[in-house]
Amino acid sequence: MPGVATAGLPQPAVDGRAFAARVQHAIDTKTKPLGSLGVLEQIAYRLALTQRTLRPVIRRPAIIVFAGDHGIAAQGVSPFPQAVTAQMVMNFLAGGAAINAFSRAARIELEVVDAGIATELEYPGNLVARAVARGTRDFSIEPAMTRAQLAQALTEGARRVDHQVAMGSNTIGFGEMGIANTSSAACLMSRLLDLPIDACVGRGTGLDDAGLAHKRAVLGAALAHHPASADPYDVLATFGGFEIAMMTGAYLAAAHARMTIVVDGFIATAALLAASKIDVRVLDYCVFAHASGEQGHQSMLDALGAKPLLSLGLRLGEGTGAALAMPLIRAAAGFLSEMASFESAGVSDRTDAASHEG
Amino acid sequence: MPGVATAGLPQPAVDGRAFAARVQHAIDTKTKPLGSLGVLEQIAYRLALTQRTLRPVIRRPAIIVFAGDHGIAAQGVSPFPQAVTAQMVMNFLAGGAAINAFSRAARIELEVVDAGIATELEYPGNLVARAVARGTRDFSIEPAMTRAQLAQALTEGARRVDHQVAMGSNTIGFGEMGIANTSSAACLMSRLLDLPIDACVGRGTGLDDAGLAHKRAVLGAALAHHPASADPYDVLATFGGFEIAMMTGAYLAAAHARMTIVVDGFIATAALLAASKIDVRVLDYCVFAHASGEQGHQSMLDALGAKPLLSLGLRLGEGTGAALAMPLIRAAAGFLSEMASFESAGVSDRTDAASHEG
Repeated sequence: MPGVATAGLPQPAVDGRAFAARVQHAIDTKTKPLGSLGVLEQIAYRLALTQRTLRPVIRRPAIIVFAGDHGIAAQGVSPFPQAVTAQMVMNFLAGGAAINAFSRAARIELEVVDAGIATELEYPGNLVARAVARGTRDFSIEPAMTRAQLAQALTEGARRVDHQVAMGSNTIGFGEMGIANTSSAACLMSRLLDLPIDACVGRGTGLDDAGLAHKRAVLGAALAHHPASADPYDVLATFGGFEIAMMTGAYLAAAHARMTIVVDGFIATAALLAASKIDVRVLDYCVFAHASGEQGHQSMLDALGAKPLLSLGLRLGEGTGAALAMPLIRAAAGFLSEMASFESAGVSDRTDAASHEG
Repeated sequence: MPGVATAGLPQPAVDGRAFAARVQHAIDTKTKPLGSLGVLEQIAYRLALTQRTLRPVIRRPAIIVFAGDHGIAAQGVSPFPQAVTAQMVMNFLAGGAAINAFSRAARIELEVVDAGIATELEYPGNLVARAVARGTRDFSIEPAMTRAQLAQALTEGARRVDHQVAMGSNTIGFGEMGIANTSSAACLMSRLLDLPIDACVGRGTGLDDAGLAHKRAVLGAALAHHPASADPYDVLATFGGFEIAMMTGAYLAAAHARMTIVVDGFIATAALLAASKIDVRVLDYCVFAHASGEQGHQSMLDALGAKPLLSLGLRLGEGTGAALAMPLIRAAAGFLSEMASFESAGVSDRTDAASHEG
């Protein structure tokens, strides 16, 4: 697959190791016991390397929500009707969804993109209209999209990131809305990690046992119906959604721009998995926001070597996990940039030689 | 122990159950799959009951850091010298500590109280001077404080909360600074939960194996030296710190004022444990911020039936865990207050009857 959204990521700086040692020294000499900020120290370290500074800042954090519909919804794999994709997008635009509340609470810029919604919207207002088509095809019958559609989706996703960079953002997360998109993500996961579909399928928005069994049967048959390629472009075109493919393009562009990428839940991680198969260096820019309640997410996180910041039992999507993690990332940048060192604050460091003597 | 900070907490409203059902219904009809906001739904539920409204708000969140010194420090139970308490307080006042960075990042008001620092401060500036004495006595030899000192500390802690209420805060967390105060907290925990001291002692700011063994021996002997009372006032006076006793008084006052209380780590939880033995209803107002990296914290959380929001390997104190959890609590209030319902947003709810039919 040539060109779009796959341009090489920046090479590490020549003095990478020396700078990394300086970052670690700066973290270790802050006025706190060694290592006492736990995981936030690892986040701060990554931010410093990404931004190539000892004083990283989180600038105009943004979340882009990509929305798209899925032909596979016709197979009854979700308890919600397909019209909900468009209805929820209207809800996003009106400010009434969870991602709106969380973005407001954490001062995050929010952009909503129509990647390919099936239902016509009545008052699209501030929606960014980039629909590749009115929903994908039903991948239980035929590939979800053409190669040309995939290329378009990857490119549009990258362009939305470029827009946020131009607006001044250096930290970004991606969310999604699309009825049946846990089915798409489960098939991506199964193919890209070579896992049986049952290990990848969860209850999505809330299937009961019978619904879960039906979803597994539908997806198992769909996987068997297509050639067993693990090429990320093949897999995205066959099982992907337009919103998922846009996220994949967006991840690659965000890494190219040296942004800090905050990775949301199950579907966002499946899109990242595809991106990592295109260029594994994208992972160097990622902070994993949370462990989703959707079955299968943990296996993807394990495959990516990721330890997420939060574990709150969320399973909503929309980028909500990324929004909730953003303040922790802001705090990590804040401590590295703003805290005094033992020396600068005139605080005595530990006195191990005398410490057991009274 | 009469009077101070122990006045009865408000009784539940007569229509408590009916209101609780309305809150749960409001949470369940928001535009999201049922239960999909996980733990945040439980936080929102608690906020609504505390504030007696379906639209809770987090108003002027505040953290009070109480600082005090401990006579037990003379026994070499910390790798840091006692002077660090005062030095770190100067660092707080100058804005250079972790709690400063985190409070700025999350827009939290910060107050620093001298509860009983041993070292005289040179430029106390905006410090709230409420020292009961210049540090407690060495509880390996004699009780840490008198009953009159304990009463003073409980009262002063309550008054600082009253001040924050008067300033407009409805959400509060408590932090601490005090070299050797993990030793004090471990002894409180051992007495109040009737646990062997070895289950309560951790590495604090970073003891090595020999230091840990020494700390265990010192504290074991100290516990054996005093009568085995589990009365919270006895335990606080014998093993407490002035900063810990002020926190205990502050918890009780915050619950009395129907504030949401964000509980920090090991020492803050030990102070809460004492408060809960004085009036167990204080726990109805608490949200537990994080699981500390300090050994023993998990046992206290278990004893209190608490499941903390974050698990980031923090072991710093200062209220840093509470500060990091505050944005999650703000997000929980935001979703309940601001999200649309399926009905108000015109979003279709699930269609279970048809969901498996395609």
